[in-house]
Amino acid sequence: MSCHRAIFRFAKTFKRPLSIQRCSRRYSQAAISPQVTNAFVEDVRAIVGKSNVSTADAVREQHGHDESYHSVEPPDIVAFAESVEHVSKVASLCNEHGVPLIPFGSGTGLEGGVNALKGGLCLDITKMTNITSVNAEDFDCKVECGVTRVTLNNYLRDTGLWFPIDPGADASLCGMCATSASGTNAVRYGTMRENTMNLEVVLADGRVINTAGPGRRTKKTSAGYNLTNLFVGSEGTLGIITKATLRLHGIPEATISATCTFPDVQSAVDTTVQVLQCGIPIARIEFLDEVSIDACNKYSHLDLKVAPSLFFEFHGAEAGLKNQTEVVEFRWATDIDERNHLWKARHEILYACMALIPGSKPYSTDVCVPISNLPEVIVRTKEMIKEAGIIGPIVGHVGDGNFHVFYPVHSDDHETMKKIKDVSHKMALSSNEIGLEGLSVMRQVKQALDPNGIMNPGKH
Amino acid sequence: MSCHRAIFRFAKTFKRPLSIQRCSRRYSQAAISPQVTNAFVEDVRAIVGKSNVSTADAVREQHGHDESYHSVEPPDIVAFAESVEHVSKVASLCNEHGVPLIPFGSGTGLEGGVNALKGGLCLDITKMTNITSVNAEDFDCKVECGVTRVTLNNYLRDTGLWFPIDPGADASLCGMCATSASGTNAVRYGTMRENTMNLEVVLADGRVINTAGPGRRTKKTSAGYNLTNLFVGSEGTLGIITKATLRLHGIPEATISATCTFPDVQSAVDTTVQVLQCGIPIARIEFLDEVSIDACNKYSHLDLKVAPSLFFEFHGAEAGLKNQTEVVEFRWATDIDERNHLWKARHEILYACMALIPGSKPYSTDVCVPISNLPEVIVRTKEMIKEAGIIGPIVGHVGDGNFHVFYPVHSDDHETMKKIKDVSHKMALSSNEIGLEGLSVMRQVKQALDPNGIMNPGKH
Repeated sequence: MSCHRAIFRFAKTFKRPLSIQRCSRRYSQAAISPQVTNAFVEDVRAIVGKSNVSTADAVREQHGHDESYHSVEPPDIVAFAESVEHVSKVASLCNEHGVPLIPFGSGTGLEGGVNALKGGLCLDITKMTNITSVNAEDFDCKVECGVTRVTLNNYLRDTGLWFPIDPGADASLCGMCATSASGTNAVRYGTMRENTMNLEVVLADGRVINTAGPGRRTKKTSAGYNLTNLFVGSEGTLGIITKATLRLHGIPEATISATCTFPDVQSAVDTTVQVLQCGIPIARIEFLDEVSIDACNKYSHLDLKVAPSLFFEFHGAEAGLKNQTEVVEFRWATDIDERNHLWKARHEILYACMALIPGSKPYSTDVCVPISNLPEVIVRTKEMIKEAGIIGPIVGHVGDGNFHVFYPVHSDDHETMKKIKDVSHKMALSSNEIGLEGLSVMRQVKQALDPNGIMNPGKH
Repeated sequence: MSCHRAIFRFAKTFKRPLSIQRCSRRYSQAAISPQVTNAFVEDVRAIVGKSNVSTADAVREQHGHDESYHSVEPPDIVAFAESVEHVSKVASLCNEHGVPLIPFGSGTGLEGGVNALKGGLCLDITKMTNITSVNAEDFDCKVECGVTRVTLNNYLRDTGLWFPIDPGADASLCGMCATSASGTNAVRYGTMRENTMNLEVVLADGRVINTAGPGRRTKKTSAGYNLTNLFVGSEGTLGIITKATLRLHGIPEATISATCTFPDVQSAVDTTVQVLQCGIPIARIEFLDEVSIDACNKYSHLDLKVAPSLFFEFHGAEAGLKNQTEVVEFRWATDIDERNHLWKARHEILYACMALIPGSKPYSTDVCVPISNLPEVIVRTKEMIKEAGIIGPIVGHVGDGNFHVFYPVHSDDHETMKKIKDVSHKMALSSNEIGLEGLSVMRQVKQALDPNGIMNPGKH
């Protein structure tokens, strides 16, 4: 077991160095929605202003994909909203004409959530960037939909607070709500579900609601149904999130990091369970398989032992933390530069994986199983990847039983793509599915709130 | 500032000594639902068995109220379910005949949630008491709707795990889901919202759904809408929760307690905010005003200084905790018996408050505001209580900005009751409300899932 240890005052957010390569794949230029007429375009211009509407190919193409492999599926028209009134009026208009409506934030998704599968109008909300309020005493803030995670944390710098949910990319916070983003800090701080207190949402018919009531910033409410968490994770299919009231956390007095290698997946996961049971304040436990470590070594110029590894991070009061981490019987390295380098490497893992095949884009999968099933599922996934003869590094938020495969693949490599999809399909079958009855309830909710089916169609 | 400190190995759950006094208030014996015919009663008997159906006054009366002041409003018929099939078939039958359907668990609620405002069928689920599974490695368990909090924690005794959500009463866990129960441990462990992973729910039309998919025990899921949290807190108005998959937690290696008195509410709340910002592992911060402390002194034979007080509890690893709590600059007392006695007193606070007026029952209010508003709101509430000339001890889960007034009142003391309701009404006006647009969405969801309006009618 080779181990390393680091002490940060604060887990820095590393900016992502990669400039996003635009996908060059050809797509059908024909408008898919016959409803997007010249008159409709004029109506949109009248709402948001001429300079905030575009039907240019380049703009549509840019808004027709995220950072994932998924090929471009452009909308027919792109509008830039500057206010919740803009969003509301555009939604009403789309609803009236049956035009699909797709919200677009940072475009950093990995699952094709912004692709305009049925054409329609893409509403870019990146111009709505006000941080409406920060209430340090109440540990909350309210942001407009275009504010990103890094922007918020920079703004909070002097308050002693931070917003710890970190999915990797510098995503828009409301986009993180819409996709129920998680990330490496979920063990300690939860996901967007636990950290979203209120949402301002524009519904398909243009109604503007506050999911927990207007101005509500309380940590608990027992008044009515929990609409907030109905919209968190709804991927733009129930409404467009225009503001979010988020829970903030005190920046931990001290942060201690450690990494360890293991002979196999089973022993890494066993260690995870034991550490979780200690009740010490763990913020992150990340698993990287030997393929990911190899990718890290090459991309971040490291010399890590190529074996299944765990990256730990503990947050807490400085005095206590030192004693507490002695519960975990690891040997620790001492070189500070190396430690910083290690976590930076973890942050850049997606780009490292892509660098295994130059020019590739990520096809990523997201599987969550009970921790006790994790070794079996990861081992079986690795076998399937090996049998298929493809490259699939595995990275896991192992404290939550959650792992990703970051397949690097060229957009036009249909043979590899077929193999990846075969393996992913087999994985999906082996994990739990939503029951049919549950689906019928979701359909009833969708039907009630979006009877014309205009909100980000084709995504659920 | 007089302070006390205690070390527990585990926060014990104290059984409640009070036997519930039956309300003697007269109520209308006439069946309110004309649909509850003899033929209907026979149909119910055919589903659950003859011995599981009662229309006797005593049984109906017992099921027509909870532990609160709210007067008895009995159902027309009480049925005892022994399986989810029973629940499903009874729901279908009620839906077919338009008969109101009210689930009944431990009956320990404080807000009249089980009162049969429109008569109908009360479905008692206390016979469904299987603990279906405990997965220690995955920190989860699955329980039927009749299993109570204390029963589960006794069952878990040897696993090193516990279910920490503790609303005071030994409530049924599925009832705690239905009411979105919280309690003193919420600062560290969250509420039922954060600790419910999956629910089996019977809908109005008898459909049985698993909110997160059949068999799902994963900590995160991004598949579909978050139905789990739609049903958590829905108070039986959307469906009857028949099974819950709950998140378990490691029993903390050590627990340290402290209590402190303050000159006023403001300084108590200021201290709370400062302690929360330290990032140390606080499990509970409870506020008791001087009226509550006085009630504690009398009921639990203590000699506490009659002043606004905070009760703290820290959970963590033994070595670290001692260092960490030095951040909080309190003086600590040393008498172990006294410390145990103190937390027991906190647990029994509701009964202590009722003892201020012998024979009274609680009328409790539940208000949640941003922490920064808490001093102002509590001070104003105390003024209103004083002006009204009534007794209203204030107890707060102050780390969440949440506080209760536990008014002791005799059921037939209409004059005092009117004063209490006046004060409560003024408090409600000063706290946040759900917006009208949000309400319209809740109505749409209710309409979609319970079109005949049979599920616990009159509660939302």
